[in-house]
Amino acid sequence: MYTDLVAALDIGGTKIAGALVDGHGRILVRAQRPTPARENGDTVMRAVEEVLAELTASPLWGRASGVGIGSAGPVDASAGTVSPVNVPGWRDFPLVARVRAAAGNLPVELIGDGVAITAAEHWQGAARGHDNALCMVVSTGVGGGLVLGGRLHPGPTGNAGHIGHISVDLDGDLCPCGSHGCVERIASGPNIARRALENGWRPGADGDTSAAAVAAAARAGDPVAVASFERAAQALAAGIAATATLVEIDIAVIGGGVGKAGDVLFEPLRKALSTYATLSFVRHLTVAPAQMGTDAGLVGAAAAALAKRTDAAAAGV
Amino acid sequence: MYTDLVAALDIGGTKIAGALVDGHGRILVRAQRPTPARENGDTVMRAVEEVLAELTASPLWGRASGVGIGSAGPVDASAGTVSPVNVPGWRDFPLVARVRAAAGNLPVELIGDGVAITAAEHWQGAARGHDNALCMVVSTGVGGGLVLGGRLHPGPTGNAGHIGHISVDLDGDLCPCGSHGCVERIASGPNIARRALENGWRPGADGDTSAAAVAAAARAGDPVAVASFERAAQALAAGIAATATLVEIDIAVIGGGVGKAGDVLFEPLRKALSTYATLSFVRHLTVAPAQMGTDAGLVGAAAAALAKRTDAAAAGV
Repeated sequence: MYTDLVAALDIGGTKIAGALVDGHGRILVRAQRPTPARENGDTVMRAVEEVLAELTASPLWGRASGVGIGSAGPVDASAGTVSPVNVPGWRDFPLVARVRAAAGNLPVELIGDGVAITAAEHWQGAARGHDNALCMVVSTGVGGGLVLGGRLHPGPTGNAGHIGHISVDLDGDLCPCGSHGCVERIASGPNIARRALENGWRPGADGDTSAAAVAAAARAGDPVAVASFERAAQALAAGIAATATLVEIDIAVIGGGVGKAGDVLFEPLRKALSTYATLSFVRHLTVAPAQMGTDAGLVGAAAAALAKRTDAAAAGV
Repeated sequence: MYTDLVAALDIGGTKIAGALVDGHGRILVRAQRPTPARENGDTVMRAVEEVLAELTASPLWGRASGVGIGSAGPVDASAGTVSPVNVPGWRDFPLVARVRAAAGNLPVELIGDGVAITAAEHWQGAARGHDNALCMVVSTGVGGGLVLGGRLHPGPTGNAGHIGHISVDLDGDLCPCGSHGCVERIASGPNIARRALENGWRPGADGDTSAAAVAAAARAGDPVAVASFERAAQALAAGIAATATLVEIDIAVIGGGVGKAGDVLFEPLRKALSTYATLSFVRHLTVAPAQMGTDAGLVGAAAAALAKRTDAAAAGV
């Protein structure tokens, strides 16, 4: 399915990473800049252009047939624009046109970062071989993406799979998005830590109040830390079960910092899934930790660009 | 897209309807039997075979190129079996093989009844022209189906779109399915009526305690009746917003008895949607009442069979 070479961009609030990626998902050339997230839109774009300039300067650039972009969201793939929450200088910013101009008019494919991670896990990670999968990132926020019928499902605007902002507690706490009881509001790292602190958990001598510290306390048997992870697992299970019940998936892959917590997350998660995933066609649903590392965004953006090229070739375009 | 003639079966707990349907969705021949829902599996199957016998006796039968079945669920399209909750004699019943045998070995396409309704609304009803839609039936239960990327999304087993059994209240009331706070547990007709009665609403002289009676009371301004519909609308909105956030839909079509309640449902529903559908790519989401009548199941089953035929022709099968 994936052949030749494409350029990939992974654009987040902290860094802008770029790469040339071959048809086996190997990264051949890399470039990176910090995201000047507090600057104006053109300044942020200049950092993207510097990354692209390093890639186009490579002798391999001539083999690149397209550019894939995985960007912090929301994105609008139909308009070719992005409005990342953490990059206020970009609102409806015409990223696709600007990247195309900087990349010699190659075709550009834009997807959200959760969709990119999903493309990577489906191509080379924990969702490989699964035709219907949900892949999630549980860390500062909760994001995700879907594979349906063997193909990435970005949706018309490239944002599908935003499981962090479905409500699983309709009377629950207000979420910064404006809704109530969102999965992210209950299960993200900062919310796991907040809940533990509110319920009396205290950090060790190092003062570390991160979700990773709560996970360590949970592993050591601290009941408040355990309970905070159990509540996160319950929200994740309700969200995963809802996804399976709506679109039929057979695996949910969980990455990100919280996803690395191991058994303190996955044990209560599997237990809670048996509560919420009740119908016959979702009972076989499994959960698994993500396998892709920090390059998932780049590899996934490349996968999306390569898949688009393959589709176009199949259609005779 | 839809040409020629197919046979359609709409199998529910009360009746088994059959028809020959042309490529424009017109019903040319009809047959129907009550469902002997409390009898053993073979007795139920005999009723299906009687319906099919009427269809095969038609002079038009020779033009039929396939059979579409929309069945009460759960179904398993991959195995060709059905296990309708309200037909206990059918558990993993090999309906596809039995219908194929009774229909001269024509190809048979099986989908769940929510998916069938969706196919009908997308073909000829309120979802026509929408490439990404959720269609729902809100009555004794809450069912649904999805159109994604311009095509029906039945999922591998034909059950996708089961919005009635996603949890929007993870600590909520136990649902008969085993989960908690399901959309159906809050928004179905019987639950609208139960909640109104529990909160002090009393029926009129006719003693009618149906959701329709609660709707009439709400239209007349009874605050308890209004509140019960508002709560149902809130649960439906959370479920619809979750669906849009997960897969990107731009319309939700609501049919069934409760869907006919009109403004007492749709006004609070639209208001609640603005609370739960918050992300940029779901804010434009609209809701609309269903347009198809009681033949929706038959027309939708026919649509699925015709679409399958078209796919097979396109693939050179």
